[in-house]
Amino acid sequence: MRLCRFRGRDADPAADPQVGLVLGAGARTTVHSIPGAVDLVDLLAASKELRDQTADAAAGADGIGLADVVLLPPVYPVAMRDFLTFEAHVDGMEKGMGNAGPPAEWYDAPVFCFMAPHAVVGAYDDIAHPPDTERLDFELELAAVVCRDVRDATPEQARAAIGGYLVMNDWSARDVQGKEMKLKLGPSKGKDFATTIGPWVVTVDEFDDKRDADGFLDLAMEVQVNGEPVGADRSGHMGWSFEQLVAHASRASWVRAGEVLASGTCASGSLAESWGRTGRLEPPPLGPGDVVEMTIEGIGTIRNRVVPQRHTAAPVPPARRRVVLGESA
Amino acid sequence: MRLCRFRGRDADPAADPQVGLVLGAGARTTVHSIPGAVDLVDLLAASKELRDQTADAAAGADGIGLADVVLLPPVYPVAMRDFLTFEAHVDGMEKGMGNAGPPAEWYDAPVFCFMAPHAVVGAYDDIAHPPDTERLDFELELAAVVCRDVRDATPEQARAAIGGYLVMNDWSARDVQGKEMKLKLGPSKGKDFATTIGPWVVTVDEFDDKRDADGFLDLAMEVQVNGEPVGADRSGHMGWSFEQLVAHASRASWVRAGEVLASGTCASGSLAESWGRTGRLEPPPLGPGDVVEMTIEGIGTIRNRVVPQRHTAAPVPPARRRVVLGESA
Repeated sequence: MRLCRFRGRDADPAADPQVGLVLGAGARTTVHSIPGAVDLVDLLAASKELRDQTADAAAGADGIGLADVVLLPPVYPVAMRDFLTFEAHVDGMEKGMGNAGPPAEWYDAPVFCFMAPHAVVGAYDDIAHPPDTERLDFELELAAVVCRDVRDATPEQARAAIGGYLVMNDWSARDVQGKEMKLKLGPSKGKDFATTIGPWVVTVDEFDDKRDADGFLDLAMEVQVNGEPVGADRSGHMGWSFEQLVAHASRASWVRAGEVLASGTCASGSLAESWGRTGRLEPPPLGPGDVVEMTIEGIGTIRNRVVPQRHTAAPVPPARRRVVLGESA
Repeated sequence: MRLCRFRGRDADPAADPQVGLVLGAGARTTVHSIPGAVDLVDLLAASKELRDQTADAAAGADGIGLADVVLLPPVYPVAMRDFLTFEAHVDGMEKGMGNAGPPAEWYDAPVFCFMAPHAVVGAYDDIAHPPDTERLDFELELAAVVCRDVRDATPEQARAAIGGYLVMNDWSARDVQGKEMKLKLGPSKGKDFATTIGPWVVTVDEFDDKRDADGFLDLAMEVQVNGEPVGADRSGHMGWSFEQLVAHASRASWVRAGEVLASGTCASGSLAESWGRTGRLEPPPLGPGDVVEMTIEGIGTIRNRVVPQRHTAAPVPPARRRVVLGESA
């Protein structure tokens, strides 16, 4: 089952978003509004029977063609976590920094950072070129929507907390991110201008036949820029399953319903990985007019156009210095 | 004005928290419930006149002694950001990593990371010793509560978005954090087990006479472990003002009402800074029984006891490897 959040194309932007059931494919894709004040995450947490009843009722009413709706981010996350689970991506990025490959710590446990939750944008929204960067890039990722609070969960317990999956583009300003990483925290401004999630959530029961022998989801992932394929990988190359990611995050800590947890960039799922391997800015950084399209098997496609930079406030000044370091130490 | 969120000591833990006005000092501190379904962040955003009327009404009713309430985190943050604004702290930490001092990038702009929003605990709550660490530490920080959504704000515009200030202890597992920082992102599990915020929010109008010529808040900050002073600094040593931090965070991005933005650790406001400077684990890492008490001028005191580790789930296994790096690249 595919569930989305949407508004009619001509609806008041201040109106409450609707939750919809997505049916059909290609040009015949339709969105069927689920009546009442339904929360998409609650629907993911409901029993399959209740969810099916709700979907059957929605499917019985007329749908709206996909061209006549604006798809919103399927959830407004209560927190977002981005992991780093594809060894080959880490390898390329580390080589770009002059290192031999992934540090030993990468293999020990699935490291993640918290992301800007307010940066989520819909599947087909335009992305304003962010300020302060000449190296705009994309990141192709698979992401899970958490539908139940868990703490100290085993991977088996974590499985019931995952409601569905979606495609994510973790847009990245590589030069800004590089400066932040010199301080060994974040990244934040290098990423907080946009994160595409969508086009909808596909419920977890749709993936029963897409798991390998270890239970890892194994889905084809690909990205195109302006219609040209630039990267492809499989989610089965993740170092940990999503159930293991949730379990790790929940050690002595809450993972809450409404969170989005992402795989991190797959191999060849960003331009920076090529830049790191070759030392050349080829393919070139993204600019206004470029269209980035990402597809994950069994989920769907997100497609965003980069548009010119909008007005932004002036940067803040450099640090005020009030302490003489030798004296304060 | 001091505003808190609390429950009666004997109240049902499942009952909704109340918002309270805090009056008096020391043993005579009382909490006066503000009736109705009031949201603390909305109260910060309200006009001073409306807030004063609300407080006058609450003050007219009987208060509850501080010993008879449980103080909760004043806000459950929609996002938390932790900056790195104290040069002397960065200097000590960098020296601990074998570096000469703060990298040049530190001076350019106030770097931050997003934190675990679900880890907040109240001013006097016990802190369970987290798993996987032999280097439990504290971090003394000043934090602001955002009461209005802003985007591309100037520092002047950002000022109206800050509703008040509180004390923060960003509890840290230094060995876990150190591993995460090898991957240059986060930290996450090194910090996500507990963050104390409180004891209450002091509204921004109370600090008009605590600003220096540049408008920076200049408040004395100190931390004690088991009653012994171990660190002290002044918030005037921050490299940027809170208005500048909000402005920076809001460049091409939303900063939302209900966020908590923290200064980062002040000089001598953590054990790790001493460990970095001297190369010795003195004072020793925190363990069960240790009490960490932090006071910031004009706000108040938070005090948490470390208690033994609780049950935690087993760690996840190391990465599954499915790609031979040379072949995938």
